[in-house]
Amino acid sequence: MRFITLLLLYFSHPVFAQTPQTLQIRDYRQKNERPMIKEYMSFLSIPNLATDTINMRRNADMIMDMMRKRGINNVQMLPAETAGIAPAIYGEAKVEGAKETIIFYAHYDGQPTDPSKWYAGLSPFVPQLTDGPLYKNASFINMPSEGSIDPQWRIYARGASDDKAGVISILNAYAAVRAIGKKPLVNIKFFFEGEEEAGSDHLSEIFDKHKALLQSDLWIICDGPVHQSGKKQVVFGVRGDTHLELTVFASKRPLHSGHYGNWAPNPAMALSQLLASMKNERGEVTIKGFYDDVKPLSAAEKKAVAAVPSVEEQMKEELGFIEEERKGMGIAESSNYPSLNINGLQSANVGKLSANVIPTMAIASIDLRLVVGNDWQRQQQKVIDHIMSKGYFVTDKDPTDEERSRYAKIIKVQRSSGYNAQKTPLDLPIAQRVVAAVQTTISEPVILLPTGGGSLPLFIFEKHLGAKTIAVPIANHDNNQHAENENIRLKNLWDGLETMASLMMLK
Amino acid sequence: MRFITLLLLYFSHPVFAQTPQTLQIRDYRQKNERPMIKEYMSFLSIPNLATDTINMRRNADMIMDMMRKRGINNVQMLPAETAGIAPAIYGEAKVEGAKETIIFYAHYDGQPTDPSKWYAGLSPFVPQLTDGPLYKNASFINMPSEGSIDPQWRIYARGASDDKAGVISILNAYAAVRAIGKKPLVNIKFFFEGEEEAGSDHLSEIFDKHKALLQSDLWIICDGPVHQSGKKQVVFGVRGDTHLELTVFASKRPLHSGHYGNWAPNPAMALSQLLASMKNERGEVTIKGFYDDVKPLSAAEKKAVAAVPSVEEQMKEELGFIEEERKGMGIAESSNYPSLNINGLQSANVGKLSANVIPTMAIASIDLRLVVGNDWQRQQQKVIDHIMSKGYFVTDKDPTDEERSRYAKIIKVQRSSGYNAQKTPLDLPIAQRVVAAVQTTISEPVILLPTGGGSLPLFIFEKHLGAKTIAVPIANHDNNQHAENENIRLKNLWDGLETMASLMMLK
Repeated sequence: MRFITLLLLYFSHPVFAQTPQTLQIRDYRQKNERPMIKEYMSFLSIPNLATDTINMRRNADMIMDMMRKRGINNVQMLPAETAGIAPAIYGEAKVEGAKETIIFYAHYDGQPTDPSKWYAGLSPFVPQLTDGPLYKNASFINMPSEGSIDPQWRIYARGASDDKAGVISILNAYAAVRAIGKKPLVNIKFFFEGEEEAGSDHLSEIFDKHKALLQSDLWIICDGPVHQSGKKQVVFGVRGDTHLELTVFASKRPLHSGHYGNWAPNPAMALSQLLASMKNERGEVTIKGFYDDVKPLSAAEKKAVAAVPSVEEQMKEELGFIEEERKGMGIAESSNYPSLNINGLQSANVGKLSANVIPTMAIASIDLRLVVGNDWQRQQQKVIDHIMSKGYFVTDKDPTDEERSRYAKIIKVQRSSGYNAQKTPLDLPIAQRVVAAVQTTISEPVILLPTGGGSLPLFIFEKHLGAKTIAVPIANHDNNQHAENENIRLKNLWDGLETMASLMMLK
Repeated sequence: MRFITLLLLYFSHPVFAQTPQTLQIRDYRQKNERPMIKEYMSFLSIPNLATDTINMRRNADMIMDMMRKRGINNVQMLPAETAGIAPAIYGEAKVEGAKETIIFYAHYDGQPTDPSKWYAGLSPFVPQLTDGPLYKNASFINMPSEGSIDPQWRIYARGASDDKAGVISILNAYAAVRAIGKKPLVNIKFFFEGEEEAGSDHLSEIFDKHKALLQSDLWIICDGPVHQSGKKQVVFGVRGDTHLELTVFASKRPLHSGHYGNWAPNPAMALSQLLASMKNERGEVTIKGFYDDVKPLSAAEKKAVAAVPSVEEQMKEELGFIEEERKGMGIAESSNYPSLNINGLQSANVGKLSANVIPTMAIASIDLRLVVGNDWQRQQQKVIDHIMSKGYFVTDKDPTDEERSRYAKIIKVQRSSGYNAQKTPLDLPIAQRVVAAVQTTISEPVILLPTGGGSLPLFIFEKHLGAKTIAVPIANHDNNQHAENENIRLKNLWDGLETMASLMMLK
């Protein structure tokens, strides 16, 4: 109840102001924009798919160089036991006499991407400066050798916002704090992960191995976008995430659609029917028990969700649709439910390459977002049970001839690994201090989100380190994260720097 | 009724024998296999996508050379009025005093294909000899400089069976008939189309322009496979064909599936639901009026369908499935119904390239096969009406911002051109003479099919030339026509040569 009172006070007295300290940080940044952009573009030019071992090592080396250059100590790689994956990077800046420790987290790997889908002239690892968002017909520009730099300019590259932006903002914030001569009151540690987009498969191993080094009072997770309204937000929880890849099989060889249509089974139709059976017209998942494990929101969380500015109409206009999938539910509210989303579909070819065939197979990639209460393996199993209830024989391999001769409906289901959702209570004292710190950088109220829509393996932080986590995102919401044409707006880098600096000066 | 009697006689007295004439043709072929294979592989090495103007002209030049080399007269291209498409090729061999004319038809263009999907080491336009079918683990072989050539060997290449096999078999048959000194009783004409797989868009134009040259008593259409039992068949009709490409739109830019799933609409789910609504669990199309226009089979046709050898169980075993899509219906029977088949599906990416996004659009390529009674435009409209009944705004272009702001469900429907089905009555006298001629080449009864499953623009032949058409196919049924790894078995080339030769010596 104390926290509710505090919340009410907070919203009824929106008298916030940027502190002199924030203005000092800003002044430092304004004097250093040009080299900061240059360094960032050089960082973005290193490919960062987690499985690309050689380039991930180049990324790690550059990050460690940047850390040492800024006076961060004890810089090292924290590899997992398993060989051949991207290492985590660690560093620290201890403060004499400090009793508390905050670890700043970001990840330097990016989502897979198909270069051919990027805007003409763009390439994922050739960072490009533009004078605005390309979807509003901005132009490519070169960095001017002098003159002012418009904060509305953007940098396009894979990882520009998700999440090399986190890495660079944390590093630049630390440099700024040192430059203005401000001595932090807490020990600061740095942890940059290299496998977040690949599922953080080795994070728990790394945590177990380096438990002592990674003790802290709080992890600040710098990942994801600020609110769609452009306002800063503090996010107390994240959804969990896991995937399934479904492959429906039919004839072993492609068949002429005239001679065999529709005698031979069509896997694209079978897959469509299966997927269609998973969701109703109101956008609700119809798989048995799908919403059963969801832990209801607390009263404080409900109030916080209700206080989130409404951006749905603005977003619909920007995105070009008028009806949300889950009917009658807003963005912030829908993040508090598990989701089932088709990431991709593929069967034979469409367009110019389409031919008169009955395809041999049809594939759907599905991601499942999870909220507190869901278990990722149980959630996968619900989908698989649903598939089985439709008469499918489920295998995790391509079917054998023997299986083909026995089952009418055959599907290969490949389970990815996954992780559960995680939440930190809104009324935790250190959580309130985090909100207060971010509040020193802006004159409007910070948005508080019990659960963001995105996913991070925060579950592992609690389980393996007993750690508390709070996410403080910095990217623009229209950053095309996870898709082609990913980008960061310079203003978000500058705001992010101020946000991270405020947290390093936590009171 | 006369024909029924004849049919009954035919099946109750299966005493057929290959004629001496057939054996002479065979002897000629056996002495010339090596150069025939060599010439055919050189023909197959020229790419033959109808829109590839330069290579189609190279194909046309090679065909005309081969025709002239065989003593065919008046060889020429018959281009349409419209420039820039693949020409038809014409030639003739008139017989003094002959009152009848038969035109032999085949097409030299092939379906589009994605080279990356072909078997390792194969390339669509680098013909490869194998010692059997690759799906039974055959090996690549080189043509031996001497020794016998196994008729079970195959040639893999785009067009190997569909339908350069038709072109080469007709040309080799004519050479063989001349070589054995047999003088045909009918005038023989040759017509090789270059746009069949692209929809024969200019065929009617070509027919109108060259009406006099193309008068005949019958067209023999040499295209498609023999019966799955391996037996020869004469096909009296073909299904019509047309296409629709459906694109469901959602957000203008790809969205992070965590932040916006499932608030933002998912086009892959919407498309799946739409496609699923088009067919029920029994494989019947549920679009209103889909089967309404179908003209029922005549009694003779029903009998012929009933007499087709059952190959369904053999085919299922070969193809690796146990349940047909249209429950309880055999292949020959199902060809007498219109079909709706998904040729391909595409939305964002699957597999290694799949990312955590909500796609911007989802595409399905659909082909509609038609039977006598269906009109291709009316059949397309039934599908479109069905889509509209599901609440979609249907456009033929990408939606404008204004349309996006007005309609909740938006789909782009691109109609291809198309053509109707066509049938020739089984009891037509010349039809019976065709069956008798093919019968001279084998000692088992020829299969009679009222309607084959595949499509050819035979409707145009009747409408623009008043022509009768009968299809006499030659390819092996497992030729992977229209898909990757297309191939022809040498035995089918040799049998095809004998079949075409028998028809040139029609009594």
